[in-house]
Amino acid sequence: MDYMASRKAWIEKELPVFLQRASIPSKLKDSMVYSLMAGGKRIRPVLLFATLDTLGEKEEKGLATAIALEMIHTYSLIHDDLPAMDNDELRRGKPTNHVVFGEATATLAGDGLLTCAFQIIAADDQLSDACKSGLVLRLARAAGPEGMVGGQEDDLEAEDKFLSLEELMSVHRRKTGKLIKFPVEAAALIAGASEQEEKSLSGYADHLGLAFQIGDDILDIAGNEKDLGKPIGSDLVNHKNTYVSLLTVNGAREKLAEHIQRAKGFLSEGKFDGGILSELADYLLHRTS
Amino acid sequence: MDYMASRKAWIEKELPVFLQRASIPSKLKDSMVYSLMAGGKRIRPVLLFATLDTLGEKEEKGLATAIALEMIHTYSLIHDDLPAMDNDELRRGKPTNHVVFGEATATLAGDGLLTCAFQIIAADDQLSDACKSGLVLRLARAAGPEGMVGGQEDDLEAEDKFLSLEELMSVHRRKTGKLIKFPVEAAALIAGASEQEEKSLSGYADHLGLAFQIGDDILDIAGNEKDLGKPIGSDLVNHKNTYVSLLTVNGAREKLAEHIQRAKGFLSEGKFDGGILSELADYLLHRTS
Repeated sequence: MDYMASRKAWIEKELPVFLQRASIPSKLKDSMVYSLMAGGKRIRPVLLFATLDTLGEKEEKGLATAIALEMIHTYSLIHDDLPAMDNDELRRGKPTNHVVFGEATATLAGDGLLTCAFQIIAADDQLSDACKSGLVLRLARAAGPEGMVGGQEDDLEAEDKFLSLEELMSVHRRKTGKLIKFPVEAAALIAGASEQEEKSLSGYADHLGLAFQIGDDILDIAGNEKDLGKPIGSDLVNHKNTYVSLLTVNGAREKLAEHIQRAKGFLSEGKFDGGILSELADYLLHRTS
Repeated sequence: MDYMASRKAWIEKELPVFLQRASIPSKLKDSMVYSLMAGGKRIRPVLLFATLDTLGEKEEKGLATAIALEMIHTYSLIHDDLPAMDNDELRRGKPTNHVVFGEATATLAGDGLLTCAFQIIAADDQLSDACKSGLVLRLARAAGPEGMVGGQEDDLEAEDKFLSLEELMSVHRRKTGKLIKFPVEAAALIAGASEQEEKSLSGYADHLGLAFQIGDDILDIAGNEKDLGKPIGSDLVNHKNTYVSLLTVNGAREKLAEHIQRAKGFLSEGKFDGGILSELADYLLHRTS
């Protein structure tokens, strides 16, 4: 998908600029940049740009927010990989942050990226103060203990327990869903979307977030180790509740298709269908990494 | 000091309210509240209130920012105490967060408090949007990799090295100084202080921050274990560079008095002397915990 590739290239060019210019102890800076630039699909920034474009707003106006979002996503991966959390030594084919820089610096790199995310939004002179404080509020809610951090705790507590499909969806809405919904809602705020437009986009993002997580669970068991850059089956080893363990691989594939369908239904409702947001939904249906 | 005691009581009543109302997994919420309410001098909030009062502004206008600041201070202690960092099992006479809740939840509790800090400021409807985005920007700079988090990295790297007095002051200006300067600068922003007023207050806070750290170093070696709630001499055991190891206890006491003197000089310059800010400086000169 050309759009996705071009926006991925753009955000990857812009991502390290803030850190490179900042006065940060060099090992800490290297550690932050290492994980920030360690690849990934950049799906959250792409979603932000695509929503801005769909709403007829300049994509540049979302750049600082997109960088902030990717910093928060990156910090969550660094802390998630720590020995006391998931204890992962490999991510996207590369040694994880604490393997390279040590646990102490990895912890600080995560803390630093999380803090910089809010700094970058607050420093963005393209946006009004009202818009900036709205973005900070929404981002903190999506990323904090009512959102992603709360979902990570849920996830810890769910290990070795059996969750129902409802419970699993509730964990994932917090753990990954809110941070996939955020770029769509952020774009609506930046572009000054109507309430009706925001409602459709928000419904789209909700189903997209669930589809994304289901896709991750499928790839963990049925994906290709080389494409993923990590060992297959780690969820099983870690006794994680996944859509696959609840529904089988084929059942999870059906569920994924259903959420993509419902996401596209919300696009039709808002008359946003046929554009980049539809393409992104299709991409999530067929992705291999 | 009556002022300090009354403001400490006020902030301690208000501190847990936000978390109690929020929808957070219960173990994570308990863990966040545990460390937030684990005592301490609340010097940063008190400094914020005292500066607002000095500038003739209502102290209530700083409440959300004071809570945010104490959340950030608390998160930094939780992460600092982790086994991979300072590996402390006792703080203020109580088991540290990871000892009670486990390392994974302690890591998330820290992440959660850091994120909530920005949420609380952005949600504060007493302040203008311009003021809120200014506060978020300054707080992130003070707490992030250009500030406190950078100072913690400096501190890690300085273990088993000998620093000069200049180098030690530079580490501490980042590690503790910026977060002691922040409440004074935040109050100046909230109260709409003049540039001249802010300059005097900022000079005051700079020396106060250094005095505070010197005091900590002195108490670590010459304090009373019962007052402090932690073992004496831990800096020595951890091979930390301190003002005491560089200057001796008496030399450090002289340096502390000198910085308090210079802090008060800035108060005179701004015609703020003789009030609560002077009293706070005197308190730091004579504290025993």
